[in-house]
Amino acid sequence: MIPNCPAPLSPYIQVAELFPPGRPLRLQNGGELTDVQVAYETYGTPDSQYPNTVFVCHALTGDSHPARHAPGDLPGWWEPALGPGKAIDTERFHVVCANVLGGCAGTTGPWSQGPDGRAYGTDFPEVTVADMVTVHRELLTAHLGIDRLHAVVGGSLGGMQALDWLLRHPGDASLFALIAATGRLSADNLAFNAIARAAIRGDPGFADGHYVELRSNPAAGLGIARMVGHMTYMSEAALEYKFGRDPRRPTAGPGRRPAILRGGFEVERYLEHQAEKLVARFDANSYLYLTSAMDRFDPFADKPRPSCWPLPEVYLHSFATDRLFGVDHSLELREQLMTVGLPSTHFHETSSIAGHDAFLLDVPDYLRELGAQLRASIGGEDVSLRSPLA
Amino acid sequence: MIPNCPAPLSPYIQVAELFPPGRPLRLQNGGELTDVQVAYETYGTPDSQYPNTVFVCHALTGDSHPARHAPGDLPGWWEPALGPGKAIDTERFHVVCANVLGGCAGTTGPWSQGPDGRAYGTDFPEVTVADMVTVHRELLTAHLGIDRLHAVVGGSLGGMQALDWLLRHPGDASLFALIAATGRLSADNLAFNAIARAAIRGDPGFADGHYVELRSNPAAGLGIARMVGHMTYMSEAALEYKFGRDPRRPTAGPGRRPAILRGGFEVERYLEHQAEKLVARFDANSYLYLTSAMDRFDPFADKPRPSCWPLPEVYLHSFATDRLFGVDHSLELREQLMTVGLPSTHFHETSSIAGHDAFLLDVPDYLRELGAQLRASIGGEDVSLRSPLA
Repeated sequence: MIPNCPAPLSPYIQVAELFPPGRPLRLQNGGELTDVQVAYETYGTPDSQYPNTVFVCHALTGDSHPARHAPGDLPGWWEPALGPGKAIDTERFHVVCANVLGGCAGTTGPWSQGPDGRAYGTDFPEVTVADMVTVHRELLTAHLGIDRLHAVVGGSLGGMQALDWLLRHPGDASLFALIAATGRLSADNLAFNAIARAAIRGDPGFADGHYVELRSNPAAGLGIARMVGHMTYMSEAALEYKFGRDPRRPTAGPGRRPAILRGGFEVERYLEHQAEKLVARFDANSYLYLTSAMDRFDPFADKPRPSCWPLPEVYLHSFATDRLFGVDHSLELREQLMTVGLPSTHFHETSSIAGHDAFLLDVPDYLRELGAQLRASIGGEDVSLRSPLA
Repeated sequence: MIPNCPAPLSPYIQVAELFPPGRPLRLQNGGELTDVQVAYETYGTPDSQYPNTVFVCHALTGDSHPARHAPGDLPGWWEPALGPGKAIDTERFHVVCANVLGGCAGTTGPWSQGPDGRAYGTDFPEVTVADMVTVHRELLTAHLGIDRLHAVVGGSLGGMQALDWLLRHPGDASLFALIAATGRLSADNLAFNAIARAAIRGDPGFADGHYVELRSNPAAGLGIARMVGHMTYMSEAALEYKFGRDPRRPTAGPGRRPAILRGGFEVERYLEHQAEKLVARFDANSYLYLTSAMDRFDPFADKPRPSCWPLPEVYLHSFATDRLFGVDHSLELREQLMTVGLPSTHFHETSSIAGHDAFLLDVPDYLRELGAQLRASIGGEDVSLRSPLA
């Protein structure tokens, strides 16, 4: 059964029930969860000869649905990258994508019912990026019977999951592709997340996180959070190119508000539209939990010692105009990987003007490179040398 | 009488009553206002031999009080720059600073009582940067009897006022100093202002701008607006240097909230503190009106033809890490000034890490240059050639 979820879900979604009472999920920061539901989708066919499964990790407001399964299906969040003949080629690879722990698109999160039958709200325990990875590995091994991957691929928070996976379980896959990712958030990143959360918490409809029970809705706060986030996803140049100082187009609707309450520029209308779209499909508490997990993510602080033979390939991709996790983040990440004994890192930079959002878009150079990396690390190696998922 | 104002004001403040009913202020975008109160302060002594008055234009949340008048006075917003022996040397110059039209520190604005005895709120008419300048010129000529200035100086919105002044009344002063200013806001600038206003409007306490009458308070929304603005005032490097990933220091106070409602990093606490400070002294409607005036400011769109003899000196100063109105804004502004026949522009850039905020801070290179510019354009010229303020 798919738990309550603010958004319409694809009919191709499946749900696994993991961590039965006798085998709870032990959370990194303490506490445990049992009966964890995980919403996931699969594309393509597993190969019986060699591991051809690509696990796709989604970003902050993503879900288990990166692409349509068939005409008429809901569009996914990564259509340009995933499908037959695309970079993540579903004719070649078996692809698995799952909604993260703490999310709101079918996997257990603060929107779900707790043991007392009421929505957890802010009684949901703190989750970390490592917890998300632990749940996805459990989905693969305990539910899907997959103990070896071809690749783990993700952008933004998805890239952070792929990084955690690489550092703790380097032998799980031949390739880890970390796109527009970071080894830890900067003060600037932390500050923008802080404002987003302050906007949610400050909305009277938030009710300290118990709005589901109380049937209120922190829509205004979540909308502001999205606008703030969106500014870090788009580049200055993209905003200038798309909107410049274009005056706001008139909208049909009842009555006209005074100019001071309306705003005069098209970019303002665009941001309001982005806010409305997110509010219709996302849960404010998930926004708090997932951004907090991003904030606290600092896997190199634990001095990890990833070891396996052969070492996996690591592929980093950055976008020149990304002001969230830009080229400086990927270059620092490359240094950090070297210090823990993972020197074989390929780093590519694309000069798209689309900013952080470029990782989701049809940017030909980038998708060509991603496809090449995925194809290059398949086939020619003795996979029997690798350790299986434990 | 000083109108209601959310903030404590310096006892040195004075109030002029301008635009009596027979001589209304005609606003640029239509409508008029009469009985306009203007809060202002003066420093130093006018010189009887030559015009030594420097008019200081304040920025978005500034007021008429750039510096202390005496020990024990409230601190001002531009202490490093203004005072005896400082860049704006009050032993040499007669300084006038006034709160802008639409503000909330003594000058008529949305917080003031309208003709019906109730606070205007969002019934206050739209004001423009040109209207602010018109009011300040009226203060100088009609109230203070000053018809010729040595300089007009301002940073950020203050620099935009100085630019409008330069383009419409170039003969008013020998020097126009435009610091961290812009000839027009970029799409990025517009977007951040839009988010700030959306946060205010979305606060239920805002009540469509009539919160003064209704005795409600859009404090949460104004706080978020300030946080968003603050991110554009600080540089990434300054945030990293000051806070990095420092954990949030524990605060004394009643009870402890769940971590998810508290936030884990010091930068978050800092932003909340900035928000609280602004909310205690500023009016949400003024924030809407003044940011809207900034948005619409586009003086070169009118193809101005500033002319007088000799042409005034123009001094532009930018800060390398300013992500609001950075070096690109000043360079575009220099080009724009050239196209309207104002080629004698001095441009200086300082590499402070403080971002946009640097214009308010004790940055020695910058203040030395500002002081030198103010001293250089005094004394050696035949001021009788200049046209007086009309």
